Amino acid sequence: MLESRIIDQLKKIVGDDNVATDRQDLICYGYDATQMEFLPDAVVHPGSPAEIAAILKLANAERFPVFPRGAGSGFTGGALPKGGGIVLVTTRLNRILRIDTENLIAEVEPGVVTEQFQLAVEKLGLFYPPDPASLKFSTLGGNVAENAGGPRCVKYGVTRDFVMGLEVVLPSGEIIRTGGETYKGVVGYDLTRLLCGSEGTLGVITKIIFKLLPLPEAKKTMLTVFDSIDGAAKAVSTIIGGKIIPTTLEFMDYATLQCVEKRFNLGIPAAGRAVLLIEVDGDRELIEKQAARIQELIKPLGLVECKVAKDAAESEALWKVRRLVSPSLRDVNPTKYNEDIVVPRSKVPDVIRKIDAIAQKYAIPIVNFGHAGDGNIHVNVMIDKEIPGMEEKAHEAIAEIFKAALDLNGTMSGEHGVGLAKQPYIPLELSPVQIATMQAVKKALDPNGILNPGKMFPT
Amino acid sequence: MLESRIIDQLKKIVGDDNVATDRQDLICYGYDATQMEFLPDAVVHPGSPAEIAAILKLANAERFPVFPRGAGSGFTGGALPKGGGIVLVTTRLNRILRIDTENLIAEVEPGVVTEQFQLAVEKLGLFYPPDPASLKFSTLGGNVAENAGGPRCVKYGVTRDFVMGLEVVLPSGEIIRTGGETYKGVVGYDLTRLLCGSEGTLGVITKIIFKLLPLPEAKKTMLTVFDSIDGAAKAVSTIIGGKIIPTTLEFMDYATLQCVEKRFNLGIPAAGRAVLLIEVDGDRELIEKQAARIQELIKPLGLVECKVAKDAAESEALWKVRRLVSPSLRDVNPTKYNEDIVVPRSKVPDVIRKIDAIAQKYAIPIVNFGHAGDGNIHVNVMIDKEIPGMEEKAHEAIAEIFKAALDLNGTMSGEHGVGLAKQPYIPLELSPVQIATMQAVKKALDPNGILNPGKMFPT
Repeated sequence: MLESRIIDQLKKIVGDDNVATDRQDLICYGYDATQMEFLPDAVVHPGSPAEIAAILKLANAERFPVFPRGAGSGFTGGALPKGGGIVLVTTRLNRILRIDTENLIAEVEPGVVTEQFQLAVEKLGLFYPPDPASLKFSTLGGNVAENAGGPRCVKYGVTRDFVMGLEVVLPSGEIIRTGGETYKGVVGYDLTRLLCGSEGTLGVITKIIFKLLPLPEAKKTMLTVFDSIDGAAKAVSTIIGGKIIPTTLEFMDYATLQCVEKRFNLGIPAAGRAVLLIEVDGDRELIEKQAARIQELIKPLGLVECKVAKDAAESEALWKVRRLVSPSLRDVNPTKYNEDIVVPRSKVPDVIRKIDAIAQKYAIPIVNFGHAGDGNIHVNVMIDKEIPGMEEKAHEAIAEIFKAALDLNGTMSGEHGVGLAKQPYIPLELSPVQIATMQAVKKALDPNGILNPGKMFPT
Repeated sequence: MLESRIIDQLKKIVGDDNVATDRQDLICYGYDATQMEFLPDAVVHPGSPAEIAAILKLANAERFPVFPRGAGSGFTGGALPKGGGIVLVTTRLNRILRIDTENLIAEVEPGVVTEQFQLAVEKLGLFYPPDPASLKFSTLGGNVAENAGGPRCVKYGVTRDFVMGLEVVLPSGEIIRTGGETYKGVVGYDLTRLLCGSEGTLGVITKIIFKLLPLPEAKKTMLTVFDSIDGAAKAVSTIIGGKIIPTTLEFMDYATLQCVEKRFNLGIPAAGRAVLLIEVDGDRELIEKQAARIQELIKPLGLVECKVAKDAAESEALWKVRRLVSPSLRDVNPTKYNEDIVVPRSKVPDVIRKIDAIAQKYAIPIVNFGHAGDGNIHVNVMIDKEIPGMEEKAHEAIAEIFKAALDLNGTMSGEHGVGLAKQPYIPLELSPVQIATMQAVKKALDPNGILNPGKMFPT
């Protein structure tokens, strides 16, 4: 428990109205998209980088933990105040500071909601591609801290690829700029990208300079159904081998299709064992040509059905299959462990087969879908916690899934990060020397361990 | 001077033939593309990561400096053994280990020459875009350590954007892998990108996993001559604003054109004040359309001439103008200080005007060309060291040029790095806190300061 004189000092920094200690407020900032919950001692809503700096200086002087938080939409507990301390919410810093249409850059505060930013730049004919599933409520600060991905990353890259510069309050309370407004820049170490994906453990992001692209002229959507996973996976490499990198190559396995069909009856052919939702974007004529070429390329691969959208409304109808996946899952079992392994894309069929075997071994339904273009599969382990022993079995199954991905030269996480949820599994992926190297960097920047402690590394 | 027992230990690690201490050998590894020279005590040619690890462990035990070196083509003295110690040459590690055409990745050793790698992947229909001017002799390890750029980066990104994973010998002598074979991966800190551009101060790179792209079907080259720098600069943003991101947008200012014309008489119109060499690549039909659209877009911007290549031979003829720039420069003055500032691309005319004023103030010819698409201008300060005081004046002029770039929200270096050459100017760009933060990272990974010491940071 924080002493009341520290609470008073926090109030002095951010104002009385911006420090909450009531139980109902603490509860609101003690959870995220995992089903974990930890209550902080206080929730603080700073209004400026200077206030954040003062909070972190106080935290060093008084040695209390600070947990930065955006919208709290994370899937690994990265923003949760395990062990107590204060939650530092960045959502008051929510301005789009500028959109520079000539240099194709934008500067924003961390609390801007991802989709709001996308809509703002699109109005000006510009494009910010990263599209995590949480984009309607996740904030850009959280996107950078977690290095968020999304379906469009196969063509455009992840959040990191669009971050040109940052303003950051270091754990010491010092404010620095990293990177800048230029596409190239090699003066000093690349602190910008060290901070991307550091899960709020190395600094509190207070400004972000993003690179933007011209908004593509048009897009074209296709829903393709295959009679095997191998066919769908082969389609992915055949399309890319055919010199077309689609905007999205969303994959759904048989278990996913069964869920969606059962609940929504969309008429997916019974012979379908895997679906690819393919979208291309760019020049209007080129994408027509690409769509035709894609159909030609995938025809011999066990294609059962191919629907091509003629307009935006039809495109939206095709996306429905993908969007209805999440709402369908709860029919399988009430609790979902949503993992996000990645394997080299040619290994997607192998990893799905291994996961199917794990599902059978533990008698737990596992539903797989995700971003086949970059081999990033969302593995949903569906359990009923009321059934004794099922939760423990799920954790064993998850460890086996991670091992399967790692055996295929993959990784445990492509988008969600480590946080608390994947912490126990870290030694499966990282060697003691890798961990020690990362911890040395953490220690160098946060010697007192006040910023988001207890995360990412094994405890 | 290293004691002879240390030389003996080095010989035990790498074999007698792979340690050189003769003066003529030391001279060969004491210079780079700058005109600086420092003699090492020994030159060591390890043949494996394990040998490099043993050398670094010895260096820690005996506290001698180790300077990693690829082809020695750097422009800032980053590989030079200032203060003595050993030069560790990575060129024996020169194998392309694999090119995976299905997952579009390649794994290489650091000593592979950039162009050799490009040709090897192109044979398989793949593409490795980064194209530093030194690509015929520079090595990929050096490219990663310096985060090399090149003309094609405006469309495709810099070396960093193609590095997926590394094997690195840390300063401690421990060997780790960073990143991996997947496009996405967010487990732990991004050590891969921390190492990119760290100029050999944080580790010796022993393997690199690169991301590749499908080789574009075709390209189209245009040489466009404008009656003002503003016209050429406006052309850059107009083209990109028109939703076309060319592969290259190479800029040459009036001083550059005069050099090339005087020496080679290529027939550039007398009214020309700036040239843009524009290339687009991709789908054959699309690039024809883009080339036509570009001509339409730039016509009102003071276009004096526009030559469009019809085939590869004509394209090569147009590139000649750009390629002849360097050989022409020596006619101006014998010594070239080649700086590589960057400004947001809309600020290119402003920075050129400022540089012209600096050239007049110091009465030193300054010739500017480079990558206008990303605002990365190569500023060539041409002097004759025989003229007393000219060298000192050049350094003052360079400091003013850096300040001009920084005042326009730019950076001192987009491609070359800091090394020794830009070290004195670092406090112009980085604040004491930024420098201290980077030094803390260095100290965390290299507590004894044995790896490439005395570089990058102010001494």
